[in-house]
Amino acid sequence: MYDPAVRLAGPGDALSVALLLHDFNTEFDEPVPKPDELARHLRGLLERAAITVLLAESEGLVVLRFQSSLLSESLDCYLEETYVVPSRRRCGIGTALIKAALRHARDRGAGYAYVGTGEEDVGARTLYEGLGFSHRRGHAIGPVNYFYEREV
Amino acid sequence: MYDPAVRLAGPGDALSVALLLHDFNTEFDEPVPKPDELARHLRGLLERAAITVLLAESEGLVVLRFQSSLLSESLDCYLEETYVVPSRRRCGIGTALIKAALRHARDRGAGYAYVGTGEEDVGARTLYEGLGFSHRRGHAIGPVNYFYEREV
Repeated sequence: MYDPAVRLAGPGDALSVALLLHDFNTEFDEPVPKPDELARHLRGLLERAAITVLLAESEGLVVLRFQSSLLSESLDCYLEETYVVPSRRRCGIGTALIKAALRHARDRGAGYAYVGTGEEDVGARTLYEGLGFSHRRGHAIGPVNYFYEREV
Repeated sequence: MYDPAVRLAGPGDALSVALLLHDFNTEFDEPVPKPDELARHLRGLLERAAITVLLAESEGLVVLRFQSSLLSESLDCYLEETYVVPSRRRCGIGTALIKAALRHARDRGAGYAYVGTGEEDVGARTLYEGLGFSHRRGHAIGPVNYFYEREV
């Protein structure tokens, strides 16, 4: 399986990250700022470490958020976005990205990771389930956990 | 319907918050530090505003996390925990807490809120759905969104 180089993005990668997130949101018909405007915003987030981005160069990315755990001294890690460009799907890039994300999270002292995904997104679900994520409480046939959201 | 006073917790409320979170985790058989140890940890989180807690005194709480939105200048709000003590359930305290949380989030400039909940937790799901949250994409019969998690 193809093993892409995955590296941590810095503020200087803001435009690369913006282009990928722009394509991602455009593909799924979600509103998104123009790439140069988005790049300015993302540069600020990267500079103050409000986001952590792992990049498989122009092929894909994962955006992480770290926060202090509520009950312990460790960190929680939210996998906010995972994207692979359409022409490079089914090559193992998603797997490489999520594996790198979990490795990075472990290195930073995270003890828990979570992610929301749609029931119809079989590719993402297979990926997460193959890497040990579960949407069922406690055991393989436990009740399902739902991801609820709303605008505020 | 009972309308409890809901207020923003400060570092001086760490023990009250710890006692509620201790009872919450104990009720659901989740591991949790002793209340005094947890209170010390929570005081630190409250002091550096890593968490936002809205308290209905000794009856319940909601724990929020705010983060800069990935695509805009607004904030995202994660409702990490919502708890009402067993003897005071079905009195409207959960509704008052989530309404206060949404009001607080709006006042701080949040544009989006999310929360995970189990399919069997009909009380919580009814509460969130009644306040405009959806676990379906796009429309009422859209595909369901799942909340995946794992230890790291």
